[in-house]
Amino acid sequence: MIFVCLDVEGVLLPEFWLKVADHYGIDDLRLTTREVPVYDDLMRHRISALDRHGLTYARLRPAIDGITALAGARAFLDRLRGRYQVALVSDSFYDFLMPQMAALGHPTLFCHHLEIEGGDGRIAGYRRRQEDQKPAVVAALQELNYSVIAAGDSFNDLGMIRTADRGILIHPPPAVTAACPEVPTVDSLEALADAIDGAAATLGPARFRGASG
Amino acid sequence: MIFVCLDVEGVLLPEFWLKVADHYGIDDLRLTTREVPVYDDLMRHRISALDRHGLTYARLRPAIDGITALAGARAFLDRLRGRYQVALVSDSFYDFLMPQMAALGHPTLFCHHLEIEGGDGRIAGYRRRQEDQKPAVVAALQELNYSVIAAGDSFNDLGMIRTADRGILIHPPPAVTAACPEVPTVDSLEALADAIDGAAATLGPARFRGASG
Repeated sequence: MIFVCLDVEGVLLPEFWLKVADHYGIDDLRLTTREVPVYDDLMRHRISALDRHGLTYARLRPAIDGITALAGARAFLDRLRGRYQVALVSDSFYDFLMPQMAALGHPTLFCHHLEIEGGDGRIAGYRRRQEDQKPAVVAALQELNYSVIAAGDSFNDLGMIRTADRGILIHPPPAVTAACPEVPTVDSLEALADAIDGAAATLGPARFRGASG
Repeated sequence: MIFVCLDVEGVLLPEFWLKVADHYGIDDLRLTTREVPVYDDLMRHRISALDRHGLTYARLRPAIDGITALAGARAFLDRLRGRYQVALVSDSFYDFLMPQMAALGHPTLFCHHLEIEGGDGRIAGYRRRQEDQKPAVVAALQELNYSVIAAGDSFNDLGMIRTADRGILIHPPPAVTAACPEVPTVDSLEALADAIDGAAATLGPARFRGASG
Protein backbone atom coordinates (compact mmCIF):
# COMPACT_ATOMS: atom_id res chain seq x y z
CA MET A 1 0.00 0.00 0.00
CA ILE A 2 1.17 3.48 -0.90
CA PHE A 3 0.49 6.79 0.85
CA VAL A 4 -0.13 9.83 -1.34
CA CYS A 5 0.74 13.14 0.38
CA LEU A 6 -0.87 16.19 -1.22
CA ASP A 7 -0.49 19.90 -0.78
CA VAL A 8 -3.86 21.61 -0.38
CA GLU A 9 -3.91 25.27 -1.46
CA GLY A 10 -3.41 25.66 -5.18
CA VAL A 11 -4.02 21.92 -5.65
CA LEU A 12 -7.42 21.11 -4.08
CA LEU A 13 -8.53 24.50 -2.76
CA PRO A 14 -7.88 28.01 -4.06
CA GLU A 15 -5.12 30.01 -2.38
CA PHE A 16 -6.78 31.06 0.85
CA TRP A 17 -5.06 34.44 1.20
CA LEU A 18 -5.90 35.43 -2.36
CA LYS A 19 -9.56 34.67 -1.64
CA VAL A 20 -9.41 36.83 1.49
CA ALA A 21 -7.63 39.58 -0.45
CA ASP A 22 -10.42 39.49 -3.04
CA HIS A 23 -13.22 39.31 -0.47
CA TYR A 24 -12.02 42.36 1.49
CA GLY A 25 -10.08 44.14 -1.27
CA ILE A 26 -6.74 44.02 0.55
CA ASP A 27 -3.87 43.91 -1.91
CA ASP A 28 -1.37 43.35 0.91
CA LEU A 29 -2.64 39.78 1.21
CA ARG A 30 -1.89 38.78 -2.38
CA LEU A 31 1.61 37.41 -1.76
CA THR A 32 1.93 33.60 -1.42
CA THR A 33 4.71 31.06 -0.88
CA ARG A 34 5.07 31.13 -4.65
CA GLU A 35 6.55 34.61 -4.34
CA VAL A 36 8.01 34.58 -0.80
CA PRO A 37 9.74 31.31 -0.05
CA VAL A 38 10.42 32.18 3.62
CA TYR A 39 7.17 31.24 5.27
CA ASP A 40 7.69 33.15 8.54
CA ASP A 41 8.27 36.43 6.67
CA LEU A 42 5.11 35.87 4.69
CA MET A 43 2.99 35.00 7.73
CA ARG A 44 4.16 38.00 9.74
CA HIS A 45 3.22 40.17 6.79
CA ARG A 46 -0.23 38.58 6.53
CA ILE A 47 -1.07 38.74 10.23
CA SER A 48 -0.06 42.38 10.49
CA ALA A 49 -2.21 43.17 7.42
CA LEU A 50 -5.21 41.45 9.08
CA ASP A 51 -4.58 43.49 12.21
CA ARG A 52 -4.34 46.78 10.32
CA HIS A 53 -7.70 46.07 8.69
CA GLY A 54 -9.38 44.91 11.92
CA LEU A 55 -10.01 41.44 10.49
CA THR A 56 -10.62 39.19 13.50
CA TYR A 57 -11.28 35.46 13.01
CA ALA A 58 -15.02 36.10 13.39
CA ARG A 59 -14.88 38.77 10.67
CA LEU A 60 -12.92 36.39 8.40
CA ARG A 61 -15.45 33.55 8.71
CA PRO A 62 -17.68 34.69 5.79
CA ALA A 63 -14.63 34.62 3.49
CA ILE A 64 -13.47 31.27 4.91
CA ASP A 65 -16.89 29.67 4.61
CA GLY A 66 -17.28 30.99 1.06
CA ILE A 67 -14.23 29.12 -0.21
CA THR A 68 -15.09 26.12 -2.38
CA ALA A 69 -12.86 23.34 -3.64
CA LEU A 70 -11.24 23.61 -7.08
CA ALA A 71 -13.09 21.91 -9.94
CA GLY A 72 -12.59 18.15 -9.88
CA ALA A 73 -10.92 18.06 -6.45
CA ARG A 74 -13.48 15.78 -4.81
CA ALA A 75 -13.54 13.32 -7.73
CA PHE A 76 -9.72 13.35 -7.78
CA LEU A 77 -9.57 12.51 -4.05
CA ASP A 78 -12.22 9.79 -4.36
CA ARG A 79 -10.29 8.18 -7.19
CA LEU A 80 -7.09 8.23 -5.13
CA ARG A 81 -8.76 7.00 -1.94
CA GLY A 82 -10.06 3.89 -3.70
CA ARG A 83 -6.47 2.88 -4.51
CA TYR A 84 -4.13 4.44 -1.97
CA GLN A 85 -4.06 6.00 1.47
CA VAL A 86 -4.21 9.80 1.16
CA ALA A 87 -2.93 12.49 3.54
CA LEU A 88 -3.26 16.22 2.92
CA VAL A 89 -0.23 18.12 4.20
CA SER A 90 -0.56 21.90 4.31
CA ASP A 91 1.35 24.79 5.85
CA SER A 92 -1.98 26.53 6.34
CA PHE A 93 -4.15 26.24 9.47
CA TYR A 94 -6.90 23.98 10.76
CA ASP A 95 -8.83 27.17 11.59
CA PHE A 96 -8.98 28.02 7.86
CA LEU A 97 -9.13 24.56 6.27
CA MET A 98 -11.46 22.47 8.46
CA PRO A 99 -14.61 24.24 7.17
CA GLN A 100 -13.71 22.98 3.67
CA MET A 101 -12.89 19.37 4.61
CA ALA A 102 -16.50 18.07 4.67
CA ALA A 103 -16.93 19.00 0.99
CA LEU A 104 -13.75 17.04 0.22
CA GLY A 105 -15.04 13.96 2.12
CA HIS A 106 -13.06 14.54 5.34
CA PRO A 107 -9.57 13.60 4.17
CA THR A 108 -6.89 13.30 6.83
CA LEU A 109 -5.17 16.67 7.15
CA PHE A 110 -1.82 17.61 8.65
CA CYS A 111 -1.37 21.38 9.17
CA HIS A 112 -0.91 24.12 11.79
CA HIS A 113 -2.98 26.24 14.18
CA LEU A 114 -3.63 29.94 14.51
CA GLU A 115 -3.44 31.70 17.86
CA ILE A 116 -6.87 33.32 18.10
CA GLU A 117 -7.74 35.51 21.08
CA GLY A 118 -10.99 34.55 22.80
CA GLY A 119 -11.84 31.76 20.35
CA ASP A 120 -12.92 33.96 17.44
CA GLY A 121 -11.20 37.28 18.12
CA ARG A 122 -7.94 38.84 16.99
CA ILE A 123 -5.50 36.58 15.18
CA ALA A 124 -2.46 37.12 17.36
CA GLY A 125 -0.08 34.72 15.63
CA TYR A 126 0.27 31.11 14.64
CA ARG A 127 1.84 27.92 15.89
CA ARG A 128 3.58 25.59 13.59
CA ARG A 129 2.80 22.10 14.81
CA GLN A 130 6.43 21.34 14.10
CA GLU A 131 9.28 22.78 12.05
CA ASP A 132 9.43 21.63 8.45
CA GLN A 133 6.41 19.37 8.86
CA LYS A 134 5.90 18.39 5.21
CA PRO A 135 9.03 16.23 4.87
CA ALA A 136 8.52 15.09 8.49
CA VAL A 137 5.07 13.66 7.66
CA VAL A 138 6.48 11.85 4.62
CA ALA A 139 9.39 10.46 6.65
CA ALA A 140 7.04 9.30 9.44
CA LEU A 141 4.95 7.33 6.93
CA GLN A 142 8.11 5.82 5.43
CA GLU A 143 9.20 4.80 8.94
CA LEU A 144 5.83 3.01 9.19
CA ASN A 145 6.92 1.06 6.06
CA TYR A 146 4.84 2.85 3.47
CA SER A 147 6.09 4.05 0.11
CA VAL A 148 5.10 7.69 -0.37
CA ILE A 149 4.20 9.69 -3.47
CA ALA A 150 4.05 13.46 -2.82
CA ALA A 151 2.60 16.22 -4.97
CA GLY A 152 2.38 20.00 -4.66
CA ASP A 153 2.85 23.26 -6.50
CA SER A 154 5.13 25.50 -4.41
CA PHE A 155 8.51 26.08 -2.83
CA ASN A 156 7.24 24.73 0.48
CA ASP A 157 6.41 21.41 -1.21
CA LEU A 158 9.93 20.71 -2.44
CA GLY A 159 11.13 19.18 0.85
CA MET A 160 8.18 16.77 0.88
CA ILE A 161 8.62 15.96 -2.82
CA ARG A 162 12.33 15.25 -2.37
CA THR A 163 11.79 13.12 0.75
CA ALA A 164 9.06 11.03 -0.88
CA ASP A 165 9.79 7.89 -2.92
CA ARG A 166 8.25 9.69 -5.91
CA GLY A 167 7.39 13.37 -6.32
CA ILE A 168 5.23 15.28 -8.80
CA LEU A 169 4.69 19.02 -9.32
CA ILE A 170 1.30 20.31 -10.44
CA HIS A 171 1.20 23.60 -12.40
CA PRO A 172 4.22 25.08 -10.58
CA PRO A 173 5.30 28.66 -11.26
CA PRO A 174 8.49 29.00 -13.34
CA ALA A 175 10.70 29.70 -10.30
CA VAL A 176 9.70 26.38 -8.71
CA THR A 177 10.31 24.46 -11.94
CA ALA A 178 13.71 26.13 -12.20
CA ALA A 179 14.59 25.09 -8.65
CA CYS A 180 13.58 21.50 -9.30
CA PRO A 181 13.87 20.68 -13.02
CA GLU A 182 14.17 16.92 -12.40
CA VAL A 183 10.68 16.55 -10.89
CA PRO A 184 7.91 15.50 -13.33
CA THR A 185 5.27 18.18 -13.82
CA VAL A 186 1.58 17.96 -14.68
CA ASP A 187 -1.04 20.61 -15.41
CA SER A 188 -4.34 19.20 -14.12
CA LEU A 189 -5.76 16.98 -11.38
CA GLU A 190 -6.65 14.34 -13.96
CA ALA A 191 -3.07 14.29 -15.19
CA LEU A 192 -1.88 14.18 -11.58
CA ALA A 193 -4.04 11.11 -10.85
CA ASP A 194 -2.58 9.40 -13.93
CA ALA A 195 0.96 10.38 -12.92
CA ILE A 196 0.38 9.01 -9.41
CA ASP A 197 -0.81 5.69 -10.88
CA GLY A 198 2.28 5.65 -13.08
CA ALA A 199 4.59 6.36 -10.14
CA ALA A 200 2.83 3.72 -8.03
CA ALA A 201 3.42 1.12 -10.72
CA THR A 202 7.18 1.74 -10.43
CA LEU A 203 7.14 1.30 -6.64
CA GLY A 204 5.67 -2.20 -6.50
CA PRO A 205 5.50 -3.83 -3.10
CA ALA A 206 8.62 -2.03 -1.85
CA ARG A 207 8.73 -1.26 1.87
CA PHE A 208 6.53 -4.26 2.66
CA ARG A 209 9.39 -5.84 4.51
CA GLY A 210 7.37 -7.13 7.46
CA ALA A 211 7.49 -10.65 8.82
CA SER A 212 5.84 -13.35 6.71
CA GLY A 213 3.44 -15.78 8.40
CA MET B 1 -5.63 19.19 16.84
CA ILE B 2 -6.05 15.64 18.09
CA PHE B 3 -5.73 12.36 16.18
CA VAL B 4 -8.19 9.59 17.01
CA CYS B 5 -6.86 6.09 16.26
CA LEU B 6 -9.54 3.42 15.99
CA ASP B 7 -9.54 -0.33 15.72
CA VAL B 8 -11.75 -1.52 12.86
CA GLU B 9 -13.12 -5.04 13.32
CA GLY B 10 -15.56 -5.28 16.20
CA VAL B 11 -15.74 -1.46 16.32
CA LEU B 12 -16.75 -0.25 12.82
CA LEU B 13 -17.02 -3.51 10.88
CA PRO B 14 -18.08 -6.98 12.01
CA GLU B 15 -15.33 -9.49 12.77
CA PHE B 16 -14.22 -10.49 9.27
CA TRP B 17 -13.33 -14.07 10.06
CA LEU B 18 -16.64 -14.71 11.82
CA LYS B 19 -18.43 -13.46 8.69
CA VAL B 20 -16.36 -15.82 6.52
CA ALA B 21 -17.01 -18.65 8.96
CA ASP B 22 -20.77 -17.98 8.69
CA HIS B 23 -20.72 -17.55 4.91
CA TYR B 24 -18.96 -20.85 4.26
CA GLY B 25 -19.95 -22.74 7.42
CA ILE B 26 -16.37 -23.23 8.65
CA ASP B 27 -16.25 -23.38 12.44
CA ASP B 28 -12.43 -23.41 12.37
CA LEU B 29 -12.51 -19.71 11.48
CA ARG B 30 -14.49 -18.61 14.54
CA LEU B 31 -11.51 -17.83 16.76
CA THR B 32 -10.46 -14.14 16.99
CA THR B 33 -7.83 -12.10 18.84
CA ARG B 34 -10.34 -11.96 21.66
CA GLU B 35 -9.68 -15.64 22.32
CA VAL B 36 -6.10 -16.08 20.98
CA PRO B 37 -3.90 -13.15 21.94
CA VAL B 38 -0.90 -14.36 19.89
CA TYR B 39 -1.72 -13.04 16.44
CA ASP B 40 0.73 -15.23 14.48
CA ASP B 41 -0.74 -18.42 15.95
CA LEU B 42 -4.22 -17.25 15.03
CA MET B 43 -3.27 -16.27 11.47
CA ARG B 44 -1.48 -19.56 10.76
CA HIS B 45 -4.60 -21.36 11.95
CA ARG B 46 -6.83 -19.24 9.70
CA ILE B 47 -4.72 -19.53 6.56
CA SER B 48 -4.40 -23.29 6.89
CA ALA B 49 -8.19 -23.51 7.33
CA LEU B 50 -8.74 -21.49 4.13
CA ASP B 51 -6.34 -23.81 2.33
CA ARG B 52 -8.06 -26.96 3.57
CA HIS B 53 -11.38 -25.64 2.27
CA GLY B 54 -9.97 -24.47 -1.07
CA LEU B 55 -10.89 -20.85 -0.34
CA THR B 56 -8.76 -18.73 -2.67
CA TYR B 57 -8.99 -14.92 -2.57
CA ALA B 58 -11.30 -14.99 -5.61
CA ARG B 59 -13.60 -17.48 -3.84
CA LEU B 60 -13.60 -15.31 -0.70
CA ARG B 61 -14.64 -12.14 -2.57
CA PRO B 62 -18.41 -12.73 -2.29
CA ALA B 63 -18.06 -12.99 1.50
CA ILE B 64 -15.74 -9.94 1.61
CA ASP B 65 -18.02 -7.82 -0.56
CA GLY B 66 -21.05 -8.83 1.47
CA ILE B 67 -19.66 -7.38 4.68
CA THR B 68 -21.36 -4.15 5.74
CA ALA B 69 -20.38 -1.66 8.41
CA LEU B 70 -21.85 -1.96 11.90
CA ALA B 71 -24.92 0.20 12.60
CA GLY B 72 -23.98 3.82 13.18
CA ALA B 73 -20.35 3.43 12.07
CA ARG B 74 -20.52 5.98 9.24
CA ALA B 75 -22.33 8.59 11.36
CA PHE B 76 -19.82 8.00 14.16
CA LEU B 77 -16.88 8.55 11.80
CA ASP B 78 -18.46 11.65 10.26
CA ARG B 79 -18.99 13.15 13.70
CA LEU B 80 -15.35 12.47 14.63
CA ARG B 81 -13.97 13.74 11.32
CA GLY B 82 -15.65 17.10 11.77
CA ARG B 83 -13.70 17.63 15.02
CA TYR B 84 -10.51 15.57 14.88
CA GLN B 85 -8.20 13.77 12.50
CA VAL B 86 -9.08 10.08 12.34
CA ALA B 87 -6.89 7.08 11.49
CA LEU B 88 -8.13 3.50 11.42
CA VAL B 89 -5.47 1.07 12.64
CA SER B 90 -6.17 -2.62 12.07
CA ASP B 91 -4.21 -5.86 12.25
CA SER B 92 -6.32 -7.10 9.34
CA PHE B 93 -5.45 -6.69 5.64
CA TYR B 94 -6.01 -4.13 2.91
CA ASP B 95 -7.17 -7.03 0.73
CA PHE B 96 -10.10 -7.61 3.09
CA LEU B 97 -10.85 -4.07 4.31
CA MET B 98 -10.49 -1.80 1.26
CA PRO B 99 -13.80 -2.97 -0.29
CA GLN B 100 -15.56 -1.64 2.83
CA MET B 101 -13.79 1.72 3.03
CA ALA B 102 -15.95 3.54 0.45
CA ALA B 103 -19.07 2.93 2.57
CA LEU B 104 -17.21 4.44 5.54
CA GLY B 105 -16.22 7.52 3.52
CA HIS B 106 -12.64 6.48 2.73
CA PRO B 107 -11.03 6.93 6.15
CA THR B 108 -7.25 6.65 6.30
CA LEU B 109 -6.38 3.05 7.12
CA PHE B 110 -3.19 1.51 8.49
CA CYS B 111 -3.08 -2.29 8.20
CA HIS B 112 -1.27 -5.23 6.59
CA HIS B 113 -1.23 -7.18 3.31
CA LEU B 114 -1.97 -10.75 2.36
CA GLU B 115 0.34 -12.73 0.11
CA ILE B 116 -2.00 -13.83 -2.67
CA GLU B 117 -0.74 -16.03 -5.48
CA GLY B 118 -1.50 -14.70 -8.95
CA GLY B 119 -3.43 -11.67 -7.72
CA ASP B 120 -6.61 -13.51 -6.68
CA GLY B 121 -5.46 -17.08 -6.11
CA ARG B 122 -4.38 -19.02 -3.07
CA ILE B 123 -3.72 -17.04 0.11
CA ALA B 124 -0.18 -18.19 0.80
CA GLY B 125 0.51 -16.07 3.86
CA TYR B 126 0.56 -12.49 5.05
CA ARG B 127 2.99 -9.69 5.56
CA ARG B 128 2.81 -7.50 8.55
CA ARG B 129 3.72 -4.02 7.38
CA GLN B 130 5.73 -3.77 10.55
CA GLU B 131 5.93 -5.47 13.93
CA ASP B 132 3.56 -4.13 16.56
CA GLN B 133 2.17 -1.47 14.23
CA LYS B 134 -0.68 -0.20 16.40
CA PRO B 135 1.47 1.49 19.06
CA ALA B 136 3.94 2.46 16.29
CA VAL B 137 1.26 4.46 14.43
CA VAL B 138 0.25 6.22 17.65
CA ALA B 139 3.88 7.02 18.49
CA ALA B 140 4.53 8.34 14.96
CA LEU B 141 1.59 10.75 15.27
CA GLN B 142 2.83 11.87 18.70
CA GLU B 143 6.28 12.48 17.16
CA LEU B 144 4.49 14.74 14.65
CA ASN B 145 3.21 16.69 17.71
CA TYR B 146 -0.32 15.41 17.83
CA SER B 147 -2.11 14.27 20.94
CA VAL B 148 -3.68 10.86 20.31
CA ILE B 149 -6.83 9.21 21.64
CA ALA B 150 -7.03 5.48 20.83
CA ALA B 151 -9.98 3.11 21.06
CA GLY B 152 -10.46 -0.59 20.43
CA ASP B 153 -11.99 -3.77 21.81
CA SER B 154 -9.29 -6.44 21.91
CA PHE B 155 -5.97 -7.64 23.28
CA ASN B 156 -4.21 -6.34 20.18
CA ASP B 157 -5.48 -2.81 20.94
CA LEU B 158 -3.93 -2.58 24.40
CA GLY B 159 -0.51 -1.46 23.14
CA MET B 160 -2.09 1.35 21.12
CA ILE B 161 -4.38 2.33 24.01
CA ARG B 162 -1.47 2.43 26.47
CA THR B 163 0.77 4.41 24.08
CA ALA B 164 -1.92 7.00 23.32
CA ASP B 165 -2.45 10.11 25.46
CA ARG B 166 -5.92 8.76 26.27
CA GLY B 167 -7.35 5.28 25.65
CA ILE B 168 -10.89 3.90 25.65
CA LEU B 169 -12.18 0.32 25.36
CA ILE B 170 -15.46 -0.38 23.56
CA HIS B 171 -17.45 -3.46 24.62
CA PRO B 172 -14.31 -5.48 25.48
CA PRO B 173 -14.65 -9.15 26.48
CA PRO B 174 -14.09 -9.83 30.20
CA ALA B 175 -10.50 -11.05 29.69
CA VAL B 176 -9.50 -7.71 28.12
CA THR B 177 -11.18 -5.72 30.88
CA ALA B 178 -9.36 -7.87 33.44
CA ALA B 179 -6.00 -7.20 31.73
CA CYS B 180 -6.62 -3.46 31.67
CA PRO B 181 -9.04 -2.46 34.46
CA GLU B 182 -7.84 1.17 34.52
CA VAL B 183 -8.98 1.96 30.95
CA PRO B 184 -12.44 3.57 30.66
CA THR B 185 -14.96 1.36 28.89
CA VAL B 186 -18.02 2.19 26.79
CA ASP B 187 -20.69 0.01 25.21
CA SER B 188 -21.74 1.82 22.01
CA LEU B 189 -20.34 4.05 19.26
CA GLU B 190 -22.44 6.95 20.57
CA ALA B 191 -20.94 6.53 24.01
CA LEU B 192 -17.49 6.22 22.42
CA ALA B 193 -17.93 9.52 20.55
CA ASP B 194 -18.96 11.20 23.81
CA ALA B 195 -16.01 9.64 25.66
CA ILE B 196 -13.63 10.86 22.94
CA ASP B 197 -15.00 14.40 23.29
CA GLY B 198 -14.54 14.13 27.05
CA ALA B 199 -10.96 12.87 26.67
CA ALA B 200 -10.19 15.61 24.12
CA ALA B 201 -11.39 18.25 26.58
CA THR B 202 -8.74 17.07 29.06
CA LEU B 203 -5.95 17.26 26.49
CA GLY B 204 -6.34 20.93 25.57
CA PRO B 205 -3.71 22.39 23.28
CA ALA B 206 -0.95 20.09 24.56
CA ARG B 207 1.69 19.04 22.02
CA PHE B 208 1.27 22.29 20.11
CA ARG B 209 4.76 23.28 21.04
CA GLY B 210 5.78 24.65 17.65
CA ALA B 211 7.37 28.02 17.03
CA SER B 212 5.11 31.07 17.42
CA GLY B 213 5.08 33.68 14.68
